[in-house]
Amino acid sequence: MAGEAVAGDIPGLARLPRSVELVRGEGGAAELVYLDQRLLPGEVTFCHTRSWREVVDAIKTLAVRGAPAIGVAGAAAVALWAANDPAARCTEADEFVRRLHEAAAEIASARPTAVNLAWAVERLERCARDAVASGAARGEALCAALVDELFAEVKELEAQDEAANRAIGANGAALIEPESRILTHCNAGSLATVFYGTALGVVYAAAAQGKVRRVYADETRPVGQGARLTAWELSRAGIPVTLICDNMAASLMARGEVDAVVVGADRIAANGDAANKIGTYGVAVLAAHHGIPFYVAAPASTVDASLASGAEIPIEERSAEEVLPCAPEGVDIWNPAFDVTPAELITAIITDCGVFAPGQIAEAFGK
Amino acid sequence: MAGEAVAGDIPGLARLPRSVELVRGEGGAAELVYLDQRLLPGEVTFCHTRSWREVVDAIKTLAVRGAPAIGVAGAAAVALWAANDPAARCTEADEFVRRLHEAAAEIASARPTAVNLAWAVERLERCARDAVASGAARGEALCAALVDELFAEVKELEAQDEAANRAIGANGAALIEPESRILTHCNAGSLATVFYGTALGVVYAAAAQGKVRRVYADETRPVGQGARLTAWELSRAGIPVTLICDNMAASLMARGEVDAVVVGADRIAANGDAANKIGTYGVAVLAAHHGIPFYVAAPASTVDASLASGAEIPIEERSAEEVLPCAPEGVDIWNPAFDVTPAELITAIITDCGVFAPGQIAEAFGK
Repeated sequence: MAGEAVAGDIPGLARLPRSVELVRGEGGAAELVYLDQRLLPGEVTFCHTRSWREVVDAIKTLAVRGAPAIGVAGAAAVALWAANDPAARCTEADEFVRRLHEAAAEIASARPTAVNLAWAVERLERCARDAVASGAARGEALCAALVDELFAEVKELEAQDEAANRAIGANGAALIEPESRILTHCNAGSLATVFYGTALGVVYAAAAQGKVRRVYADETRPVGQGARLTAWELSRAGIPVTLICDNMAASLMARGEVDAVVVGADRIAANGDAANKIGTYGVAVLAAHHGIPFYVAAPASTVDASLASGAEIPIEERSAEEVLPCAPEGVDIWNPAFDVTPAELITAIITDCGVFAPGQIAEAFGK
Repeated sequence: MAGEAVAGDIPGLARLPRSVELVRGEGGAAELVYLDQRLLPGEVTFCHTRSWREVVDAIKTLAVRGAPAIGVAGAAAVALWAANDPAARCTEADEFVRRLHEAAAEIASARPTAVNLAWAVERLERCARDAVASGAARGEALCAALVDELFAEVKELEAQDEAANRAIGANGAALIEPESRILTHCNAGSLATVFYGTALGVVYAAAAQGKVRRVYADETRPVGQGARLTAWELSRAGIPVTLICDNMAASLMARGEVDAVVVGADRIAANGDAANKIGTYGVAVLAAHHGIPFYVAAPASTVDASLASGAEIPIEERSAEEVLPCAPEGVDIWNPAFDVTPAELITAIITDCGVFAPGQIAEAFGK
């Protein structure tokens, strides 16, 4: 399940997989194909599932991760519910919508921080409500019609995700100087999206313009998205990449070896504060200290203008076992999965709708 | 081989091992007993060796680590050479000193960054030269006399190390506020010294005064001295400890949960710049950003007044396998073991000779 490079792309892009893709399986049944990212870089294994609960599990266990990717996967889970769950065999429209909402709520709460998940699930719910309201189908035909509507909506989301990433890439590449050495944290790459990536989308677009000398990938403890995913993805795409431990970024900056930092985001508040993988905030402080531009790259769906500031973004805490499988007795472990980078440390927010100073987010994306 | 708590110590201190100890083994032969820290926290295993080369290997492979501990271990290696190496069976004084110097040079170069190693080895060489110069022993008796001299010198170093750490602890505890939550990086604990520790010496002394609410231990990738050693040591000593990944320190500080940072040092230049475990510099930048005092705790032997600034401190780079045993093809890895924190980010340097502003180091310890 490879992605598709287009004219102007770096050639290596064609070697990257699509992370999530809703397809018609045998007999026409909807199924989600997803890359099990827990097995990377050792194994490139695609899973096929018709079960929306399995998708929820894949999101919770990080088999599928990355804000845009879990958004699409969550939307696909809603479509799978409608297509394959017995509870969706329901001929009464209001009851169908009520049952769909129950499943959607469970899907949306699989992970709390990335707003893209709730956003995409809500979009699928709205699609169902609109279809029901239009009265296009009733009775026995209701479910089948809605399955088709929801399937089409997910496919549109997939296409829009890639298009948004390519727009982010183009917008961001304009900010990258020739011969740049770019530091990134976690994986906001093709793997974190349907295809192409957000932060790494900027890298791919800048590389196509010959501007990228090297990418430094923070390991990103405890889950190692940088070591396992970003390093793998970039080397596969043919971008020179050096892996460092998270605590080495400061030294690298002090040596003058970082020209720009580009990271993704899981949720951006109205004031421009951005939540992203734990450790991002520290990198932002270091970048400011060393006078290095710090860019956040994310699609418009990552903006949650309903939150005044990052202080309101829920931060997921994950299990201690991620940090240390067997902690010595008497040792506590704190394992927040995200942190919030305040707007004042962000040079610019690169979106598919353009590049914004953090202070412009409310105006650009406010309701 | 437990350490010895004295009156006024926290009771848990008696549960900590001595990391290195030169002893008379069976038949009176000198041997070094060292805790193999690679096996912690799973196993508490002491190794006994009469081979100076094995000690060099223990230092290189991090079985013994921590600037003060490798200083004493290096000195012990010199004594073991004199006691047990056939090359030391030499009745001619100048030739003995020449051969000893050859071994000493190899020992001193086992690791480059911590100056304590070269300092302690040089002290043993001087001891040998002085003994030879005094003419106390000649001919057949030469080697036996020097073995005794060198053995005694190592035992004095061991005692001085613990005494220095206790002085550091007392001096540092005075800087710690009641109810403090202290962040530390790497392990500058009892394990990094003969006994008691430098940065954690400050913690133990402050805890004896009831001032320590909790210690946050940075995991300290790639070798995990914080996760494997500091967390183990503190929990064993009865100090409340929370382990975090290196990239979580910034979040912790932003939440106002860190009152002070205390770290060790491997070498301090004349201008107060301090080399320490990779990641320390980043923590110092974060501490400054959050207005948190940043203390470096180290014995006087860590000061290398011959270096004008930290830019002259050699930084050891270690193997890529420490970071990732099997990196994907095409992925480079950078693995510096240390970084340099500039004087302006250091609130105070806590030594056994007193507490100094970084700018006072040259005057206090200059030649």
